[in-house]
Amino acid sequence: MATLQDIGVSAAINIVGAVSFLLAFAFLRIQPVNDRVYFPKWYITGSRTSPSRNRNFVSRFLNLNPLIYLTFLNWMPQALKMSEHDIVSHAGMDSAIFLRIYLLGLKIFVPVTLVALLILIPVNVSDGTLSFLKRDLVVSDIDKLSISNVRPQSSRFFIHIGLEYLFTFWICYLLYKEYSIVASMRMRFLASQRRRVEQFTVVVRNVPHSSGKSVSGSVDHFFQANHPEHYLSHQAVYNANRYAKYVIRRERLQNWLDYYQLKYERHPDKRPTTKRGLCGLWGDHIDAIEYYQAQIKYLDKRMAVERENVIKDSRSILPVAFVSFNSRWGAAVCAQTQQSKNPTLWLTDWAPEPRDVYWSNLAIPFFSLTVRKLVISLSVFALVFFYMIPIAFVQSLANLEGLERVAPFLRPVIEMSFIKSFLQGFLPGLALKIFLYILPAVLMVMSKIEGYIALSMLERRTASKYYYFMLVNVFLGSIITGTAFQQLHSFLHQSATQIPKTIGVSIPTKATFFITYIMVDGWAGIAAEILRLKALVIYHLKNMFLVKTERDREKAMDPGSVDFPETLPTLQLYFLLGIVYAVVTPILLPFILVFFAFAFLVYRHQIINVYNQQYESVGAFWPHVHSRIIASMLISQLLLLGLLSTKEAANSTPLLVVLPVLTLAFHKYCKNRFEPAFRKYPLEEAMKKDVAERAEEPNLNLKAYLADAYLHPIFRSFEAEEEETIIVQEKADKQEQSHEASPSESELSSPSPEHHAEEPELQAQAHAHAYQYEFESSQHYYAYHYGYDQ
Amino acid sequence: MATLQDIGVSAAINIVGAVSFLLAFAFLRIQPVNDRVYFPKWYITGSRTSPSRNRNFVSRFLNLNPLIYLTFLNWMPQALKMSEHDIVSHAGMDSAIFLRIYLLGLKIFVPVTLVALLILIPVNVSDGTLSFLKRDLVVSDIDKLSISNVRPQSSRFFIHIGLEYLFTFWICYLLYKEYSIVASMRMRFLASQRRRVEQFTVVVRNVPHSSGKSVSGSVDHFFQANHPEHYLSHQAVYNANRYAKYVIRRERLQNWLDYYQLKYERHPDKRPTTKRGLCGLWGDHIDAIEYYQAQIKYLDKRMAVERENVIKDSRSILPVAFVSFNSRWGAAVCAQTQQSKNPTLWLTDWAPEPRDVYWSNLAIPFFSLTVRKLVISLSVFALVFFYMIPIAFVQSLANLEGLERVAPFLRPVIEMSFIKSFLQGFLPGLALKIFLYILPAVLMVMSKIEGYIALSMLERRTASKYYYFMLVNVFLGSIITGTAFQQLHSFLHQSATQIPKTIGVSIPTKATFFITYIMVDGWAGIAAEILRLKALVIYHLKNMFLVKTERDREKAMDPGSVDFPETLPTLQLYFLLGIVYAVVTPILLPFILVFFAFAFLVYRHQIINVYNQQYESVGAFWPHVHSRIIASMLISQLLLLGLLSTKEAANSTPLLVVLPVLTLAFHKYCKNRFEPAFRKYPLEEAMKKDVAERAEEPNLNLKAYLADAYLHPIFRSFEAEEEETIIVQEKADKQEQSHEASPSESELSSPSPEHHAEEPELQAQAHAHAYQYEFESSQHYYAYHYGYDQ
Repeated sequence: MATLQDIGVSAAINIVGAVSFLLAFAFLRIQPVNDRVYFPKWYITGSRTSPSRNRNFVSRFLNLNPLIYLTFLNWMPQALKMSEHDIVSHAGMDSAIFLRIYLLGLKIFVPVTLVALLILIPVNVSDGTLSFLKRDLVVSDIDKLSISNVRPQSSRFFIHIGLEYLFTFWICYLLYKEYSIVASMRMRFLASQRRRVEQFTVVVRNVPHSSGKSVSGSVDHFFQANHPEHYLSHQAVYNANRYAKYVIRRERLQNWLDYYQLKYERHPDKRPTTKRGLCGLWGDHIDAIEYYQAQIKYLDKRMAVERENVIKDSRSILPVAFVSFNSRWGAAVCAQTQQSKNPTLWLTDWAPEPRDVYWSNLAIPFFSLTVRKLVISLSVFALVFFYMIPIAFVQSLANLEGLERVAPFLRPVIEMSFIKSFLQGFLPGLALKIFLYILPAVLMVMSKIEGYIALSMLERRTASKYYYFMLVNVFLGSIITGTAFQQLHSFLHQSATQIPKTIGVSIPTKATFFITYIMVDGWAGIAAEILRLKALVIYHLKNMFLVKTERDREKAMDPGSVDFPETLPTLQLYFLLGIVYAVVTPILLPFILVFFAFAFLVYRHQIINVYNQQYESVGAFWPHVHSRIIASMLISQLLLLGLLSTKEAANSTPLLVVLPVLTLAFHKYCKNRFEPAFRKYPLEEAMKKDVAERAEEPNLNLKAYLADAYLHPIFRSFEAEEEETIIVQEKADKQEQSHEASPSESELSSPSPEHHAEEPELQAQAHAHAYQYEFESSQHYYAYHYGYDQ
Repeated sequence: MATLQDIGVSAAINIVGAVSFLLAFAFLRIQPVNDRVYFPKWYITGSRTSPSRNRNFVSRFLNLNPLIYLTFLNWMPQALKMSEHDIVSHAGMDSAIFLRIYLLGLKIFVPVTLVALLILIPVNVSDGTLSFLKRDLVVSDIDKLSISNVRPQSSRFFIHIGLEYLFTFWICYLLYKEYSIVASMRMRFLASQRRRVEQFTVVVRNVPHSSGKSVSGSVDHFFQANHPEHYLSHQAVYNANRYAKYVIRRERLQNWLDYYQLKYERHPDKRPTTKRGLCGLWGDHIDAIEYYQAQIKYLDKRMAVERENVIKDSRSILPVAFVSFNSRWGAAVCAQTQQSKNPTLWLTDWAPEPRDVYWSNLAIPFFSLTVRKLVISLSVFALVFFYMIPIAFVQSLANLEGLERVAPFLRPVIEMSFIKSFLQGFLPGLALKIFLYILPAVLMVMSKIEGYIALSMLERRTASKYYYFMLVNVFLGSIITGTAFQQLHSFLHQSATQIPKTIGVSIPTKATFFITYIMVDGWAGIAAEILRLKALVIYHLKNMFLVKTERDREKAMDPGSVDFPETLPTLQLYFLLGIVYAVVTPILLPFILVFFAFAFLVYRHQIINVYNQQYESVGAFWPHVHSRIIASMLISQLLLLGLLSTKEAANSTPLLVVLPVLTLAFHKYCKNRFEPAFRKYPLEEAMKKDVAERAEEPNLNLKAYLADAYLHPIFRSFEAEEEETIIVQEKADKQEQSHEASPSESELSSPSPEHHAEEPELQAQAHAHAYQYEFESSQHYYAYHYGYDQ
C-alpha cells in the first residue's frame, strides 16, 4: 500500500513535470519562430500573418524584448478573457460546449469537495477502527481518512448515505440546468446560422437499382414523385477511391519536388540527385528535380484518364446521392421520414456538412451494415475484456512484492526508499497510459468499418468505445486486478449481489492508485498538451525542408483540433472517479478539482489560439456526456451499496436502494425533454428560417447556391483550387488591411474582442478560410477522409 | 414426481372435459334460440336476421331436424373453408394475422416434433443412466425419455446441440418468412384501404397555453404557419367525462324502464311497482314505470345543461386536437416529425381510428406521463415478482407430501390412487389458472394509468405486461418454486453463470407439470372458449328480462372479440415451452402440437362466426410476437447451456455459445428490415394513394368528409343516433334481399365465398354496420372507452 509519503513523492514529480512543461511553453510561445505552432488559429482566421520582413534577422526568430520574459505566465488570464459568445464565433459551438464540460466539473466538484472534506474527514478519522487493527492490516494513512476507518455497524453511515443523496441531487440539478442551457445554445446557434448547404440537403443511401435507369435518373424520378413541391436537385456520388489514391501519391511527389527545388535554390551550384529505387535508397543516381517532374507529369496523365473513367463509367456512380430541396422544411421532412415501403431502401438522413463527410463509407449497403455492426460490437467486446490481461500483468509487476518475486536481483534497487516510492507512485499510471496511447487509432478504424458517413459521428462512436474501454479496464480493471489478478476469475462467477460488494470493498484501498493516475494522466498530460511538442518538431522540420512560399508555411502549420475521441472519455472517467470517491475517500477530490481547473485553462487557451475544428456538430456529443455522468452516479450508488452491506450497516443501507431508481427516472425525463434537440430538427424552426429568408432575399437562386456543394472533393480540379485560393487570399489580404487593430506579433496577446463584433461576416470569412485551408492541406484531407496512411 | 400414469389420468380428465364441452357446443349451436350467441358475426354483417316468424313455436327454439345431429362435428371442416383473403374482408386483418400465429406454431412444431421424437427419444432412452440410479433418485418415466437420462460427459450431447442449432435455424427461417409475409400483407391492406379519416388525421397533444388565444386558435395558427400547404382543419377535444357518466346512468335507467314495461305488457293486469330506496330494496312502493320515466326526464334535463356547459365553457376544451390535412402525405409528414423546438409541446402522432380512441387519456400532460410510466413500471415489477408468493404457496399445497403435512386428516382421501393422480395432475395447473384469471383486468387498469390514447395500444401494452408476468411466474416460478420454495432466496444470490444452471437442471423434471398445464389451460381452456358459456347465459337472461324489439335483441348480443391481452401472452408461453423442451424433453411437443391445431380450429371458427373486432390495428402486434419467439429461443439456448454445463459435457458445450449471438443478430436484422412497416408510414405510399385519389375524384370535398369524424362520441345526440340507425337498418334490409343466397338458419353452414366477391363494397358496409352496432350498444361503448363500471 502506498503511504501519504509515496503520494507526496509522486505529486512532487508530477508537479515538477507539469511546471517544467509550462516553463518550456512560456519560453517557446513567445519566440516569433514558433508563432505558427502556438497561434495557428489566428493565421487561419486571417488576423495574423508571418512576421514582417522589415525587422532584423534575429528578431524574426527570437524574442529579444526582456519585459515579455517577466510576464511569462500571462497566458492564463488571457485565456479567460474571451467571452463564451466570442469563443462560439471564433472557434465554433463544439469548442464552446466542450469547455462547458470542464466548467460543469468545477461547478459540481467545488461544493462537493468542500462539503465532503469538512464533514466526512472528521467523521471518518474520529471513528478510527483502523488504528486498532493496524497489526493485522497494512493500511495507508489515506485509508484513515476514508470510509474504511468507520466501525462496522456504526450509525455514522447515515451521514455517508445522506451525503450521497445530497451529492446526487446537486449533480442532477446542475446536469438539468446544463442540459437545458446547452440545448438552447444549440437551438439558438442553429437558428442564427446563415444559409448553409446542409440545411437544404439530405443524404439518400441504398438507392435501388432499377433496370434501364441510371442512379441519377431514378433519384430524380423518385423525389420528383414523392416530394414534388420541394425537390430541387441532386448530386451523385462517384466511387473515386482509386483517383483519391493518385491524388495522395501526387501530393507526396510534389513534396519531394519542393524539397529538392528548395535544396537547389539554397545551393545553386549543385543539382540535387536521388536514387531510382524504393524510397530513393538504391539504384542509379539521377537528377532529382527532373525525376520528380517527370513522375508528376506521368501521374497527371494517369489521373486525367482515371478521372474521365470515373465520370463516364456508370458503374462508378454509387447508389447514394445528396438530394437538395428548395426549403429547409422540405429537407427536414425528407430527412426525418421513411420514404419507401421497403425500409432498407431510400434511407434518408441529414447530410453532414460537406467537410464532415466520410466519403469511403457512403456505398455500404444495408445488409452489410448490419453484419458490420455485429462484427464490430463483438470485437469491441473482445478488445475491452481481453485487453485487461496485459494491463493486469504490468500492474502486478508494479506491485513491488510481485516484482521482487519475479526478479529477485532487483531487490537492492527496489528497496531504496526513493525508488520504491517512485515505482509505486508512477509506474502503474504510466503503464496504463502507454497501453492507452495506441488505442484510439484502433477504435477509430473499428468505427470506420462500422460504416458511419460523417467524421463527427465516427469520432463520437470512437469516443463511446473508448469510454467502455476505460470503464472496464482503467476503472474496474485497476480496482480488481490491482489487488489480486486471481480475483478476476472468481469475479466472473459471483452473483449479482456479490459483485458490487467485491468492488465496493476494494474501492477505498485503490484511492492512492487513482490519485497517482490523476496526477500522471491529468496534470502532466494536460501540461504536455499545451506544449505541443510533436507539432513543434514537425513544423520546424517541414519549415526546414519543404517550405518555399507563404502558402507552404500555411500548409506546414498543423493546428490540430480538440481530440474528442480521447478527451471526452478521459473527462468522463474523471467525473466517474470524483463521483465514486466523493463519499468513500474525499481526499481524492482536490486532485480532481485541480485537474478540472488546469485543464479548463489549458483547453481554453488552446481553443482560442491553436485548434481549428474540422467540422461543426453543434454539441452533438452532449447527450453522451450527460448520460455518462448519470451512469457514473449509478455506479457510485451501487458500489456504495455493496461497500455498506459489507460493513453490516443493516439499518442504514436500505435507504440507498431508492436512489438508483430516482436517478434513472431523472435520466429518462432528461432524455425525453432534451435529446430531441440534438437528434431532430423541428419543422417550426425550419419554417421560420424559410419564411425569413424568402422575405429577405426573394430572388435567391438556391439551385446555383447548392450546385456542386457536395461534389466529391477530388473533382475540384487543381486548377480550380488554385483559382479559389487566390480569390480567398485576396479577400484575406483585404480583410487584414481593414483590421488594422490586429495585434502585433511582439505583443502576443489574444486579440481584443472587437474583432468579433461583426459576427456573421467574420463567421463567413472563417468558413471561407476553413475551406481554403482544407484545399491547401488536401493531402491531410484525403488521408483523413479516406483513412489511408500517407 | 408424477409418473406416466398420472399424466394419463390427467390427459383422460382433460380430454373428457374438452370432448364434453365440444359436445355441448355441438348441441347448443344448432338450436335456433342460441343462434345469436354462436353466430353473432353474421347478424352484424347483416347476412342473417332473427328466425322468421312463419315457423312453428317449437322450431323457433329447438332444432328438430335429426339429420343435423348426426353431423354435429361439421363445424371443424367448415371453419377451414373460408380462405384467408375472405377472412381479411370478413373479420379484419388483425384476426387473419392472429390466426397466422397458430399456423406458424404448427409450421414450426410439426417438423420439430417429428425430428425430436425420432432422433432424441432413442438417443435418450438407450443411454439409460436413470435406471441405474433409481434407488437414489425418484424419477418419473418421462424423465427416461428426456435429456436427464443421458450419462454425464457423454458425446451424445453433440446430437442435442446439433438439433438445437437445427431447430434455431428452422425457426429463424420461418420467422423471417412469416415476418415478411405479414409485413407485406399489412402494406397491401393499407394500400388497398379506401379513404379513411385516420389517414388524414394526426393527434396533437400538449398544445401549449398561450394567453389571449383559445386552444383552437393556437392550433389553427400553428399549423397554418408550419404546414401551410397541407393543413385543412382541426377538431377540438372536450373534457366530457361527467357528461359521459350521465349517459351511462341514463342507459341504466332506460334498461330498468324497458324491463318494467315488458313486464307490464306481459301481465297488463298488474302495474309493476318498485321501491324508492337504494337499488329498489326498501322504501315506499311506487309505480315503477312512472318512476323511471320521471327519472329519465329529470336526467335528460341535467344532461342538456351539462352539454351546454361543456360546449360553452372554454376550460373544458383540452389542450389536445385532432388535426386534419388535405393529403395523406401531409398527415404522414406531420405525424412523423417533431413540430416544436420544445420536444414536450405539440406532440404529434397518428390519430387512432375514431372507434379506437381512448378519450379519457387524451389530456395527460408530458411531465405527468413520465411520472406515470415510472410508477407503473415499478408496480408491474412488484406485481410480477411478489405475485409469486401466493402461487408458490398453493403449489406447495398441491405437492401432496406438503398437503399431508399441513392437513394430516386428509391422508386417507389423498392416498386413494385415483384421487392422488387427479390432484397431482390437475390441481397445480388449476391453481395457477385461477390466479391468472383476475390479472388481465388489473394490468389493463395499469396500462390505462400509463396514458396510452388508443385501445389497441392499451391492449398491446397489457399483453406485454401479462407476458412478463407469465414468463416469471408461470415459467420460471413453476420451475423454481415447484421443486423447492426455499430455492427462491438462494436463487437471488447466485452468479450470472449459476442461474441458467439452476434452472436448466430443473427443466427436465418439470416436464410433467407443463404437460398438465398445457392440457388444462390449453386443451380444456380452448374447448371452453368455443362453448361461450358466459355469453350464452347472459344473452338468455337479457332476452328474458329486457328484450322487446329486434333492436334490443341486437343489443343483448355480445359477440366479443379476440382477447389479445390474454391470448397473445398465452400463445407466446406455448412457443416458449415448445422451444425450451424441444431438445430437453421432446415428449412434451405432441401436447403442444395438439394445442396449436385445436386452438387454430376453434379460433378460426370463432373469428368467422362470433367475434366482432372493436378496432383494426392491421397486425400491429406482430413485432411483439416475433421478438418474443426470439426471446424464447434465447432462453432455451441459455438454459440448455446451463443444463449441459452441469452434465460435464465440456467438449460439446462451448459450441452452443455462438448460437445466442447469431440469434440476436438475426433479431436485429429483422427489426431493422421489417419493423418500420409497423411503426411508420412511408411517404411513397402516401403519395401514391393521394395521386390515385385525386385522379379518381378530383372534386372530392375532403373537408366535409373529415368534419366531425373525431367528434367526441357523446356529442352525437340520441336523435342523430336513432336516425342513423334507421338509415343503416334500411340498407341492411336491402342488402339482405339482394343476397338471396344467404345461408338459411337450418343449414348453419358458414356462407359461401361469393358473398365476399365485391370486396370493397362489402367492407364499407361492414364498416357501417360496425358503427351502427357501436351506437346501439353505446352503453358498452362508454364503459369500455371510459373505464367505468356499468
